[in-house]
Amino acid sequence: MSVRAGILVTGTEVLSGYVTDRNGPWLSERLADLGVEVEEITVVGDRPEDLEGALSHMRDWGLDLIVTSGGLGPTADDLTAEVVGRFAGRELVLDTEMEEKIGQIIARFARRLRFDPEAVREANRKQAMVPAGATALDPAGTAPGLVVPANGQVVIVLPGPPRELQEMWPRALETPAAKGVLDRAEPFQTMSIRMFGIPESELAKALREIEDDGAALDQLEVTTCLRGSELVTDVRHRPGSEDAAEALRAGLEERLGRFTYTETGESIEEVVFRLLGDRTIAVAESESGGLLAGRLTLRPGSSKWFSGGVVAYSNESKSNLLGVDPGLIEDRGAVSPEVAEAMADGTLERFGTDVSCAITGVAGPGGGTAEKPVGYVCFCAKSAAGEALARDPILPGSRNDVRERSVVVALHLVRYLLEGREPPR
Amino acid sequence: MSVRAGILVTGTEVLSGYVTDRNGPWLSERLADLGVEVEEITVVGDRPEDLEGALSHMRDWGLDLIVTSGGLGPTADDLTAEVVGRFAGRELVLDTEMEEKIGQIIARFARRLRFDPEAVREANRKQAMVPAGATALDPAGTAPGLVVPANGQVVIVLPGPPRELQEMWPRALETPAAKGVLDRAEPFQTMSIRMFGIPESELAKALREIEDDGAALDQLEVTTCLRGSELVTDVRHRPGSEDAAEALRAGLEERLGRFTYTETGESIEEVVFRLLGDRTIAVAESESGGLLAGRLTLRPGSSKWFSGGVVAYSNESKSNLLGVDPGLIEDRGAVSPEVAEAMADGTLERFGTDVSCAITGVAGPGGGTAEKPVGYVCFCAKSAAGEALARDPILPGSRNDVRERSVVVALHLVRYLLEGREPPR
Repeated sequence: MSVRAGILVTGTEVLSGYVTDRNGPWLSERLADLGVEVEEITVVGDRPEDLEGALSHMRDWGLDLIVTSGGLGPTADDLTAEVVGRFAGRELVLDTEMEEKIGQIIARFARRLRFDPEAVREANRKQAMVPAGATALDPAGTAPGLVVPANGQVVIVLPGPPRELQEMWPRALETPAAKGVLDRAEPFQTMSIRMFGIPESELAKALREIEDDGAALDQLEVTTCLRGSELVTDVRHRPGSEDAAEALRAGLEERLGRFTYTETGESIEEVVFRLLGDRTIAVAESESGGLLAGRLTLRPGSSKWFSGGVVAYSNESKSNLLGVDPGLIEDRGAVSPEVAEAMADGTLERFGTDVSCAITGVAGPGGGTAEKPVGYVCFCAKSAAGEALARDPILPGSRNDVRERSVVVALHLVRYLLEGREPPR
Repeated sequence: MSVRAGILVTGTEVLSGYVTDRNGPWLSERLADLGVEVEEITVVGDRPEDLEGALSHMRDWGLDLIVTSGGLGPTADDLTAEVVGRFAGRELVLDTEMEEKIGQIIARFARRLRFDPEAVREANRKQAMVPAGATALDPAGTAPGLVVPANGQVVIVLPGPPRELQEMWPRALETPAAKGVLDRAEPFQTMSIRMFGIPESELAKALREIEDDGAALDQLEVTTCLRGSELVTDVRHRPGSEDAAEALRAGLEERLGRFTYTETGESIEEVVFRLLGDRTIAVAESESGGLLAGRLTLRPGSSKWFSGGVVAYSNESKSNLLGVDPGLIEDRGAVSPEVAEAMADGTLERFGTDVSCAITGVAGPGGGTAEKPVGYVCFCAKSAAGEALARDPILPGSRNDVRERSVVVALHLVRYLLEGREPPR
């Protein structure tokens, strides 16, 4: 059976664009894992009328479940408990047990930092006000969460800080009210096919052909999306549509398999680590400024493969840290295929790894020339055994786009090196 | 006069949490700059009924302006133009001039990549369908945008890729329909006060005291927000409330000035660069894996101050690249104040900069011990002149939180070093 949900993120700082919302996407993925149809994510400010308006819209829209994040803090603009209580027609009452719990959490912190205990006590009391009949969830930070039955709907009220929200989520799922809704949801089956190096129009054409060939794509929820330089096809379906999903998978493999780097939803860095096996990698970066290293250390356990990197931003650092010949830099320019290769060589030598990858480019917005415009980036992936792959494309977009795309292009170049083949044209 | 707007982001990939929405926050900031009150950002999937539902809600809510992003691509799930046309009561008609323009853009691309011209032509035609009476905006990528008058409201329809959306935005603002709405908006005045090292409850108390002292805070829109380890107070007001804003600023300075690092909205890296003046900096990182270097190279022109960095992830790389004594690592552990200082020394020496900063820590989730738990991070900021500041806190949160907080703590430690003072307790 279908359970439909909305996510309501509150916070003027998110609405204003000062802070990127991480809770909406996180909750959406968790709800999808449970088989819930997420129909919308709405961000509103800290004004009670806007919060009420969004809740009413979600009620009118017939959603079974509303999950809110934010507005549970101690400051005056934190109003979610009060507004949700009113929405559910429930008075706020002081939960003395919760007040005690919050008090104990804060006491340790406040003593250590020597802040005013009276300010702290006032903040506690506000945070321990709970709509009558709702279930209060133990705080992950200092703010308790709530699960509030509201005229046939259920509202789960969670704190704004992502760490607290994520820690509290399992507690919310264990409440009888949340269980009552979520037990009706039937899980989805999913598939994620990721390609590199083709435009979206080519994928659109392949999907039309696969449908024309008789695959029942209408049984699937197919989402295609260009993410940086990668083209991702996400497929979600209910049990019983396995044949349609397989027809889609096989059809894409037949037509565009040479561009596909994973059918299991692995990220490119996971693919690279898998292909590395027992080998190690180190990197050298200029224009991407450490983002390639950051990406390679995103997941725990990456130290098995990743030894380290050099961010050689200045010309001197390219020579001092990586042994690039200053004459070569002067002769060819810091952004050149020759310097990229010298950086890759220096990285292999200094880190003693099996594989290296180097990036040097013009991220912009300044620094471009007719010959080497903004977006011109030189890549070199090399192995200690002497194999090498090099590319020097012009990447589109802003400074940030160029930096982020560089990371993706570099990782795919390493992949092709490890696969022992040239990138397809 | 007040102009109220909603932002409607479409895309199942965003709704599902696969992709982080960058358009909502970006549009929100731009609209705020124009004096527009953004009341909500809503994300819906690619189903026409959800898009229609959200548009209707925004109409019922009485918003003057709706800005949409996404759903203009060539694939079948790209439906925004059609749905907005229906919402505005306007038929879709083929804009042949636009079809020609798109054709020319695509032709270059398709010839170079040798993709099927018929697939490309079909995609073009779909993208050139425009609601009658709407203004089509020249594509930034291949999809044209739209400005659609809709029964007293104006809907601006923009493409999903952030680069295309941002490039097209000024074109949308120049259309008579958009001007008609936006000319009625009166710009806000803003102030952003940023602090480091205090909890939110202390700020809440200060705000209450300032109000009790008679400042007319009700004339201001005050947003407080804990962002990583920084506490940001954003203030927005209409012209005429300057006295209230100044009373707030002075009151916070008096009470919490020692924690304030900027009143002008500068980021911490901008403050560090400003304090550096003619001096240069290089960094060494272990657990933060390049994110500190990434942050220091975020903005154009950073090469004036930032020479480079070493991501010394393995013990060997700490010794090979930074000259850290392997005996010291064995004796004290890779995560220790002593190794952090040796990394900072090695960085000064190898890069020849005036200042260095080193980070080594346990990001987790594994690798923690009783003595050095997950989140234990050692920092050392040092100058070539011999000044040094060191800290070794336990940072809360997930692997990602620890990594991101490390960057912020390191930057503030450098700031204190450059200011020549100890961080306040």
